[in-house]
Amino acid sequence: MGTTQLESVPEPKYWHLKTVLSEALDSEFSVGEILPNERDLAARFGVARATLRQALEQLELEGRLQRRRGVGTTVAPPRVGVAVGTEQHAWPGTATDAWQLADSALEVPPAAVAAALETGAEDTVHIVRRSRMTHGQPVAAELLYVPQSSVPELSAIDAPSGTARARAVLRELQRLELEGQDSAVELGSARADDAKQLDRLPGAPVLVVTTRFFAGGRTAALSVATYRADTCRLTFGDSGGVEIHQQPERQAS
Amino acid sequence: MGTTQLESVPEPKYWHLKTVLSEALDSEFSVGEILPNERDLAARFGVARATLRQALEQLELEGRLQRRRGVGTTVAPPRVGVAVGTEQHAWPGTATDAWQLADSALEVPPAAVAAALETGAEDTVHIVRRSRMTHGQPVAAELLYVPQSSVPELSAIDAPSGTARARAVLRELQRLELEGQDSAVELGSARADDAKQLDRLPGAPVLVVTTRFFAGGRTAALSVATYRADTCRLTFGDSGGVEIHQQPERQAS
Repeated sequence: MGTTQLESVPEPKYWHLKTVLSEALDSEFSVGEILPNERDLAARFGVARATLRQALEQLELEGRLQRRRGVGTTVAPPRVGVAVGTEQHAWPGTATDAWQLADSALEVPPAAVAAALETGAEDTVHIVRRSRMTHGQPVAAELLYVPQSSVPELSAIDAPSGTARARAVLRELQRLELEGQDSAVELGSARADDAKQLDRLPGAPVLVVTTRFFAGGRTAALSVATYRADTCRLTFGDSGGVEIHQQPERQAS
Repeated sequence: MGTTQLESVPEPKYWHLKTVLSEALDSEFSVGEILPNERDLAARFGVARATLRQALEQLELEGRLQRRRGVGTTVAPPRVGVAVGTEQHAWPGTATDAWQLADSALEVPPAAVAAALETGAEDTVHIVRRSRMTHGQPVAAELLYVPQSSVPELSAIDAPSGTARARAVLRELQRLELEGQDSAVELGSARADDAKQLDRLPGAPVLVVTTRFFAGGRTAALSVATYRADTCRLTFGDSGGVEIHQQPERQAS
């Protein structure tokens, strides 16, 4: 903290520009407003366009700007708090759940998923695809992997895929006694199909939340959920769905 | 999932290259190995250097590659699981805590922090700086904001700053009864001082974890912790410090 330490750190030019731009956003622009084009901005701040672009990328990373094809660069609204963990553990698809079912199919999962679920490398598992909306915007896409051994009664169901089948998989899963769950969050880039669901380009930064659901002493289901990193902050803990409003990191810079 | 859906999505060229490169990393390179230079790689895969760079950026985002000045691009080891939330809530600085104290000072916090702590805009608060190491590598830098009203007995202490003062602030804080805590995770870019602590350049992607500690019916302390997004996956939930080994997102792409 403090200016002394800051001054001892060599700051790249784009970093200084980012700070200046950030202040300009606060004082001169409102949410949703379109920024001047890169050439005009570069001229105004007396920097090369490459430097400007780096600074804009930083601000996009921090959720201050949104860049959309055909629209340009706009001032982003504050990130939305999305609850991803609460004290109460629950199976996917239970009442308080914010997810919408898309479809379900029986497929061979990626090797890492098979390892986590302790299924054979060539075994098919149920893959339920869900999406999550907040304020009418898609915020997350999820693949839920359920080994056939977790839902042994499901074989009687006729529908080969679709929402009805997805619902049936979750209903069967909920019969098991949930013993616990844990989650991990990491930075990733959106796969092509997730990107489409999230209204982003493939490769956009996302927060990947991997959740293991434990039942019968093993991992009974595994969820890989991809959240838009530009619009979401993920909340964990006591307050559940309560949004944390302050964004100290943004203003501390 | 499935090739049908994937094929219906237009894939940018760098995205396809990323997939090809990712497979090459799996089959031809080992962790820590230095990649050929950009010119050679671009020639090998028959792409423009701009396309190659975009693909390398994606792989860096996903934690597969590390780019370091003076070394070049190396194959990254798997991300390290770092526990950031457990079922047991605890004040910062208690026994099981993985943080090292750096220093402490009395300063005016950023406006958003002041709002969260309900201190006046010009009021100084105790700011404790800590760092977190895993396997000898710095993984996180933290600023812990503690209003003076949370540690009323502290005024008697002489040391104006430094580790001893930081320890005293935490000791006083631990006298309060912790009523609960919650956390939020979002994508950010490293501030200059955090970047230095984390051995990264300013602006590097980081995961920012904001934790509120509740006592006496209000927010008694606020932590803003900045984790390296390239090397960390943050774990929450039952298993506490247990690392989640699989990385489904990486291999699902």
